[in-house]
Amino acid sequence: MPMTLPKLVEADLPLYIRVPSLTSVPGKILLGNLEEASSFFVKALLIRQKYMKISRQSFCRTTEKALKTYVDKSLECIDHEDVARSICAGLPTESFEDVNPFDIEFLPDNGNVCKIKNGIVMVYEDKDALEREKPLDLKHPDVQEFVSDRNVLLALCSHGPIKSFAYRRMSFLESRFNLHVLLNETNEIAAQKRVSHRDFYNVRKVDTHVHAASCMNQKHLLRFIKNKMKNCPNEEVLFRNGNVMTLEKVFRSLNLTSYDLSVDKLDVHADRNTFHRFDKFNLKYNPIGESRLREIFLKTDNYVDGRYFGELIKEVAYELEDSKYQMAEPRLSIYGKSKIEWDKLARWAVNNSVYSDNVRWLIQIPRLYNIYKSNNLLNNFQEMLDNIFTPLFEVTCNPSSHPELHRFLPQLIGFDSVDDESKAENHLFHEDSPLPNEWDLPENPPYSYYCFYMFANITALNNLRKQRGLNCFMFRPHCGEAGSVEHLMAAFILAQNISHGLLLRKVPALQYLYYLAQVGIAMSPLSNNSLFLNYHRNPLPSYHARGLIVSISSDDPLQFHFTKEPLMEEYSIAAQVWKLNPCDMCELARNSVWMSGFEHNLKKHWLGENYLKEGIESNSISCTNVPGIRVAYRHETLEEELCTICDPQIKDHIPPHS
Amino acid sequence: MPMTLPKLVEADLPLYIRVPSLTSVPGKILLGNLEEASSFFVKALLIRQKYMKISRQSFCRTTEKALKTYVDKSLECIDHEDVARSICAGLPTESFEDVNPFDIEFLPDNGNVCKIKNGIVMVYEDKDALEREKPLDLKHPDVQEFVSDRNVLLALCSHGPIKSFAYRRMSFLESRFNLHVLLNETNEIAAQKRVSHRDFYNVRKVDTHVHAASCMNQKHLLRFIKNKMKNCPNEEVLFRNGNVMTLEKVFRSLNLTSYDLSVDKLDVHADRNTFHRFDKFNLKYNPIGESRLREIFLKTDNYVDGRYFGELIKEVAYELEDSKYQMAEPRLSIYGKSKIEWDKLARWAVNNSVYSDNVRWLIQIPRLYNIYKSNNLLNNFQEMLDNIFTPLFEVTCNPSSHPELHRFLPQLIGFDSVDDESKAENHLFHEDSPLPNEWDLPENPPYSYYCFYMFANITALNNLRKQRGLNCFMFRPHCGEAGSVEHLMAAFILAQNISHGLLLRKVPALQYLYYLAQVGIAMSPLSNNSLFLNYHRNPLPSYHARGLIVSISSDDPLQFHFTKEPLMEEYSIAAQVWKLNPCDMCELARNSVWMSGFEHNLKKHWLGENYLKEGIESNSISCTNVPGIRVAYRHETLEEELCTICDPQIKDHIPPHS
Repeated sequence: MPMTLPKLVEADLPLYIRVPSLTSVPGKILLGNLEEASSFFVKALLIRQKYMKISRQSFCRTTEKALKTYVDKSLECIDHEDVARSICAGLPTESFEDVNPFDIEFLPDNGNVCKIKNGIVMVYEDKDALEREKPLDLKHPDVQEFVSDRNVLLALCSHGPIKSFAYRRMSFLESRFNLHVLLNETNEIAAQKRVSHRDFYNVRKVDTHVHAASCMNQKHLLRFIKNKMKNCPNEEVLFRNGNVMTLEKVFRSLNLTSYDLSVDKLDVHADRNTFHRFDKFNLKYNPIGESRLREIFLKTDNYVDGRYFGELIKEVAYELEDSKYQMAEPRLSIYGKSKIEWDKLARWAVNNSVYSDNVRWLIQIPRLYNIYKSNNLLNNFQEMLDNIFTPLFEVTCNPSSHPELHRFLPQLIGFDSVDDESKAENHLFHEDSPLPNEWDLPENPPYSYYCFYMFANITALNNLRKQRGLNCFMFRPHCGEAGSVEHLMAAFILAQNISHGLLLRKVPALQYLYYLAQVGIAMSPLSNNSLFLNYHRNPLPSYHARGLIVSISSDDPLQFHFTKEPLMEEYSIAAQVWKLNPCDMCELARNSVWMSGFEHNLKKHWLGENYLKEGIESNSISCTNVPGIRVAYRHETLEEELCTICDPQIKDHIPPHS
Repeated sequence: MPMTLPKLVEADLPLYIRVPSLTSVPGKILLGNLEEASSFFVKALLIRQKYMKISRQSFCRTTEKALKTYVDKSLECIDHEDVARSICAGLPTESFEDVNPFDIEFLPDNGNVCKIKNGIVMVYEDKDALEREKPLDLKHPDVQEFVSDRNVLLALCSHGPIKSFAYRRMSFLESRFNLHVLLNETNEIAAQKRVSHRDFYNVRKVDTHVHAASCMNQKHLLRFIKNKMKNCPNEEVLFRNGNVMTLEKVFRSLNLTSYDLSVDKLDVHADRNTFHRFDKFNLKYNPIGESRLREIFLKTDNYVDGRYFGELIKEVAYELEDSKYQMAEPRLSIYGKSKIEWDKLARWAVNNSVYSDNVRWLIQIPRLYNIYKSNNLLNNFQEMLDNIFTPLFEVTCNPSSHPELHRFLPQLIGFDSVDDESKAENHLFHEDSPLPNEWDLPENPPYSYYCFYMFANITALNNLRKQRGLNCFMFRPHCGEAGSVEHLMAAFILAQNISHGLLLRKVPALQYLYYLAQVGIAMSPLSNNSLFLNYHRNPLPSYHARGLIVSISSDDPLQFHFTKEPLMEEYSIAAQVWKLNPCDMCELARNSVWMSGFEHNLKKHWLGENYLKEGIESNSISCTNVPGIRVAYRHETLEEELCTICDPQIKDHIPPHS
């Protein structure tokens, strides 16, 4: 049952040498298992599609089409253009050089009222509706349904024959790619050479995963601190023990002069002692091991109102602008300790004019409930969710209630969930887990519990914001860096894309699903090399060969990088150690733009007018420098895999679609 | 028989935890072999010392002292300060910003006459002496003696028990270093932190091995070419087939516009196809595969008199100056096809003001006799030597005979021998090999033959130049990148230091000798990764652990590097992949300065006033950021090894000193 191959629209495609299809092979080997395996994979894909649709996130178009064609003709597809337009909606389309992106329209108060219930913020028409407990029908997922969906993945990933099947398919895919490269490398490179002007240096690359507090390298931070000590020693920068301290006083208290300071003394770089010690690594955020320096220089909320941090961030942004082709998606923190965090953060951004054409923001939520609970800052987990999400619902209903936040939000593209995944989790999220308002235990909820409630609130929020014509957000958590593989199951269901994904190498069935659904993975091999996995064991080259959507990101230039161009350093090392060719590098760069949260019109400019379409149509080699041959190979291979999985012969075996 | 340990002069040294000595161990295991092995190693070290002394190069002071103390009290030691002062003698000591280094004193003609004989240039008092064939007594080595000395090394390296002994010692040294680091890392890092201001970024690093024609990265060359096409399309740049071509015409003939040009089209980067294909790699020097572009942009001798190349080199030099702490020793080519090459090269440098505080030059001689011979440019090998060396003797006797060359030479620090070492060599250099004037065979002389005759001429030249108070030169060939290990034997005898040395990993006895004599090795792991050895198999970290003097160099940024800072990129990748700590990195940087050809006064400034002394006295942590503990460990370990080897009990077994 061959699908039709995409039309050959580019001059170089006639040169494409196709690798023989492997479609029929697994059937012969594993016919009995194939049916069972396929039914599970299809079910898992349908689950993800359901969650992506409800949350207004996107889903691989090719996969969705295959599901609709072969599995369920009634499947409601996602309006991908609509989703793409929702990202950063409300931002000026001109360069921020000419227009201040904080100057945006204020909608009137719609009079709605928000209140959190069972961990999800509910919106009521008015106070009256609140009293009658009649919330608006903003779609959000059901916790019981999520647990049962997650259980499908748990079953799938621990099922022996399915594991063998997936492992075999992934091996096939890797071998097939290697064969493809041997057959087509010359033509791919020739196609790249035929493109005028464009090369790896001037294709767009997005640093899809970087933390704002560590987005400058160690030398940059050192220079900045030295400059401040030299030029404004008498500035009051810190309030400690009832006293206001000047910068000079702070440094005197540390027994340091500007001249003394060196990168060694700053001691922010990861070293041999941080390997498998995320706790030690976290301490590296404190320059000279002093939390007060972190507070002065790397925080948005401090005695100088985060002015120094704003200046630092702007310096990094200038460098990106100067490079022209490098973008970044830095993470800023919201902790959920109090409701005013959002206003403070937004005020910092607006007052310090922290914005750049080359930067869009994500909010990272550290999973630190247990700390706040033990410090009596919170009574239960719901209060944390309330602090994080209620202000966002309020500002959506009535922008004037948090004016700076309203100005800031269009530049925000999504949410990240961060912390040490390797910490032990004692609780498995199940049907009878306490609801957030009941979670007053001293221990932290598990990863998937955090993810579900973040996702549920983002979903409701997106649906509310869409109604008001405001921009929507993606869920893009850290996932699979360490710890339980169950994290990767939750993220498969809920996340637009993930950061790290290292542990997929241990779960072939899940890895195969991430491939079939083309879930983006922002990988940071240098970060992994310092923390969890030596460089030459990193699965990035293997994921890339197999066709997972992988991008390269820097994570923490402050801790990991040496040169002035951390992202280029990251690409360079990958290219050298793994012998990537220019075509691979441009493909990785294209992936980074594709999975990023930059606006629809920018992506059209950077990837090609039709980037939302499928296969080679979606690619413009004159923008991306990725040859049509490569894109055609990826597309055909995915279609063949989907064709194997969605074979109508096995359709009847699929468990009922819940 | 313990030697006295060095005095502990630094505050942090009391914290130094010494690894138990391993001196006695091999004796127990290999007593019979130890005597035989030791006698061979001592003999080999004495051979090297003899050649270094005669050629006015230097020899490890600690090793020399051990040889003199335990082996041969009559051994004549090298005057190391005198040798160090001979490098770049005659250069202004001020910054070249204030003084033009080409403005130097002209000595009068001393009336001497030069003529090559048996492959070595002879100097005669005057024409009369020439007729009487009575040359001046400039020391130079004897070819028969060299062959017999080389045979000692051949015997040593193929002797089973000696191989076992050396392998075991090198393994001991590596384990010992690893233990040292585990015991002392905390104190080493603490010592670095105590140093004000100094860190890895602001210790001096010399790029000890880089080719001038590829010292800019691909993006830099692209930008330069595009600028030229934009700003001076009508400049006449090339003479081909009887016509002068403008830049525009050249590009029209290639069917290219400035806009078309990309890094991909330039195609100068090494790729998967260059691995083990040095021949393909060499073609990468031709932008767009076109030798005419190489001629226009990367040559000193062309229609524009190398002006473009001069501008490019100066741009690279500005970047080094801007970095302040990075220096380079680029190689310029002399081919030996005709005698006017030197004058042309020197004229290029002087007329284009190609000089920089951060740059000193080496001359690379490609081993291409066979090509010139087949093109009838030469009759025999002696003519090539004559073309290369006679002008240097002439300008030494009478500076006015080659005025630009005389101005240029003080910035020249030595000679490199380059070409594909993996090419088969059919001839082994032996007692009855033809003399250079008799070498009219079509095939190339072997590597060691080239080296010997280069060394012999450099030796005579240095002794002549020393008499006249002029600067002397070092012999620093490429060696051990590929091909026969015999190359490494010749270089051990003749070379001040070498580039590459990869194959030492296959010859433990020779590796041990390079360690004992502390012969510098400029390694370029990224270059190796593209050409001969995958990155993670590179022996650099192992050499470094064992105590060989290793530095990191870039070789060809045009072909290998991606970022604007090739040397930092090289250090960064090494640090990341091999998990080097800041102490290792600073030690590598210190090695690079130590083995470089920068002037005595600069080295004093960069390494410490007493850098020529031994052990911790030689190091100033405030200059190098290398802790005393590390230097003490290296020095004590070397002394213990020498002590084992030079044990007087075995002295009587040493074969007579030839």
